[in-house]
Amino acid sequence: MDKVRFGIIGLGNQGNNYTTKFIDGQIENGVLSALCDINPVKIDAMKKKEGIPEDVVYFTDYKEMLHSGLVDAVLVETPHYDHPEMVKECLKRNIHVICDKPAGVYTKQVREMNEFAKTQKARFAMMFNQRTNCVYRKMREMIAGGEIGELQRVNWIITDWFRTQYYYDSGSWRATWEGEGGGVLINQCPHQIDLVQWIVGEMPQTVRGFCQYGKWHDIEVEDEVTAFFTYKNGATGVFITTTGEAPGTNRLEISGSKGKLLCEKNKLFFYKNEVDTFVHSNTSQKGFGKPKCEIIEVETDGKNEQHVGIMNNFANAILGLEEQFVAGTDGINGVELMNAIELSGWNNGEEIVLPIDEERYLKELNEKRKTSKLKIVNDGKVEDTSNSFGTN
Amino acid sequence: MDKVRFGIIGLGNQGNNYTTKFIDGQIENGVLSALCDINPVKIDAMKKKEGIPEDVVYFTDYKEMLHSGLVDAVLVETPHYDHPEMVKECLKRNIHVICDKPAGVYTKQVREMNEFAKTQKARFAMMFNQRTNCVYRKMREMIAGGEIGELQRVNWIITDWFRTQYYYDSGSWRATWEGEGGGVLINQCPHQIDLVQWIVGEMPQTVRGFCQYGKWHDIEVEDEVTAFFTYKNGATGVFITTTGEAPGTNRLEISGSKGKLLCEKNKLFFYKNEVDTFVHSNTSQKGFGKPKCEIIEVETDGKNEQHVGIMNNFANAILGLEEQFVAGTDGINGVELMNAIELSGWNNGEEIVLPIDEERYLKELNEKRKTSKLKIVNDGKVEDTSNSFGTN
Repeated sequence: MDKVRFGIIGLGNQGNNYTTKFIDGQIENGVLSALCDINPVKIDAMKKKEGIPEDVVYFTDYKEMLHSGLVDAVLVETPHYDHPEMVKECLKRNIHVICDKPAGVYTKQVREMNEFAKTQKARFAMMFNQRTNCVYRKMREMIAGGEIGELQRVNWIITDWFRTQYYYDSGSWRATWEGEGGGVLINQCPHQIDLVQWIVGEMPQTVRGFCQYGKWHDIEVEDEVTAFFTYKNGATGVFITTTGEAPGTNRLEISGSKGKLLCEKNKLFFYKNEVDTFVHSNTSQKGFGKPKCEIIEVETDGKNEQHVGIMNNFANAILGLEEQFVAGTDGINGVELMNAIELSGWNNGEEIVLPIDEERYLKELNEKRKTSKLKIVNDGKVEDTSNSFGTN
Repeated sequence: MDKVRFGIIGLGNQGNNYTTKFIDGQIENGVLSALCDINPVKIDAMKKKEGIPEDVVYFTDYKEMLHSGLVDAVLVETPHYDHPEMVKECLKRNIHVICDKPAGVYTKQVREMNEFAKTQKARFAMMFNQRTNCVYRKMREMIAGGEIGELQRVNWIITDWFRTQYYYDSGSWRATWEGEGGGVLINQCPHQIDLVQWIVGEMPQTVRGFCQYGKWHDIEVEDEVTAFFTYKNGATGVFITTTGEAPGTNRLEISGSKGKLLCEKNKLFFYKNEVDTFVHSNTSQKGFGKPKCEIIEVETDGKNEQHVGIMNNFANAILGLEEQFVAGTDGINGVELMNAIELSGWNNGEEIVLPIDEERYLKELNEKRKTSKLKIVNDGKVEDTSNSFGTN
């Protein structure tokens, strides 16, 4: 094939965004060929979208789209619970698939998806667009390369996910256990939840979550979270997020024995110790005084291609032109971390040891779903989300 | 009296520092008249100190000093457990007293001290020198004045209290349950523990502490702490400290519905929302987009007189020249907060509801003290601590 023919399942805010990227010609080796939504109102709205190619074919049943022979690859942009099933339906038809975050709502469904994916030939990627950000890639590279020495502490304050009550009222599935399977963790924060383990290069061993449900909004799920992690070597981590604060903060700090990485306002600084802190502590003949430290603004390759980067890479990987950047099976780590925070939150900050007990999580989630209240709203509406991805 | 005659009990690092301030003439209305330490080695060292006045009288028994008629006021610079008893001994002789931090090791002794102090006429202050810092005073003033609106979140990363193993090996009482009654919380961090409640203007209602004991050093007490607070209105807080990291961080952020205060590198910024976040959230007809926000570098009076400020203020208050800045009885809040974090840490992160159960805390502390190992070291040594007070 010359160009990869893409279909999109789910024409909400995200489906719309991706459509625009095709229309704008941002996907060099990809072309939009089909669009699908179970809601005809959203299909009608899409047909009126400026610049939409006339030869795009519309479906209300995604399996019909998969059967149509019109798509080589699919973007899954539907409610979270449906992701694993739809990914499997694509893969088993040898159709490549990019799944938007999260990979699923609970690890059991994601694990099963991953096990299935490993038996299939078609490509599977997660839309972890934030992994394309040069500062995060650089942090991961530096940590993996031993530049910060032994891991001591991780701290991410990511509280700039502000949402209005109007936002929550705008979709029946939003911010419900039954519709989304969670709140800020599963909707706004999956990127940072993924990044925090991808950059550090390992998952925590224990997780505590202090979640507050409907704290700042009239919703049933959590809109504020403070999580506490411990890692294999005893290092600790704190992860804080909310949709209730403005302007909020996005500040990631990772400390090690050889220095500290600080990422803020899309800049990366390395506080580089001349001598390893542990060596200094154990050999100094003075009680006070730290190793000499140089503050370096770290140079990166400057690339931050986000969603377009993931889509171009995926199309190129299908065409054999480059390596695939994000493995689809990677999505399980973020889901496990979210699940662990949520499970702890439901149980008064209980220490959850990873790997999570997937059956327990699903059981407790299903209890929440039983009393979940889906809202009745006009689901045909689509919003401009271009200002929704955080301040930096 | 023309000038207040000061005595100092305890000639370790801190006692030495204060002596220097008198020698240097930094205490306008105070004069150094007596020095006391139970260790003659430290007295001998002091006698050789350059610039020490010839008429200073030395004691090895502090009660003899109090009886001598040579002192109007005293600085208590002894191990923590002794603070409340010594304060009471001063006050009951109508001798004014500044107690160095912490007010004591456990709330029971501090409460008893405070109750006694309220019946006495002599003045009692805590050496909360960090309260003199213009940025902290300004933050307290702005919050009390409603400028940040409703409290949403408190976050203090105060990890720049690095200490070497040599430091811990330099005093037999250091970093032991029996000698100090705790680690980084009670020795390095009492200022920030005091400030975090003084600036916010209220104590948390619940406290969790995740403490790691001897994590970075060969000591029995905690040298790393992550604490999680909840406040009366549901706001949350995180407080992180350690003596194991270099260079460490000192960053205090307090968010409210009208904006965010950020204190870093001794500068104060106000992220001021044009509209209250809650009002915006509940009235906006858009899902995304925050209130407009202006970033202002806050002007302060620029004064940051630290220990000298507290000492001058105390002398002047005794002479009736100004109001006393820090009430001695204020010390109990920090002790209660430390105790709650420690108690939670001993009990696997248990949620501690304030006010703390003082009998339970003392009982569990005494259990630790039973197996505490005092170290055998040369206690005559005194160190230059001028670089020990954090980076900003």
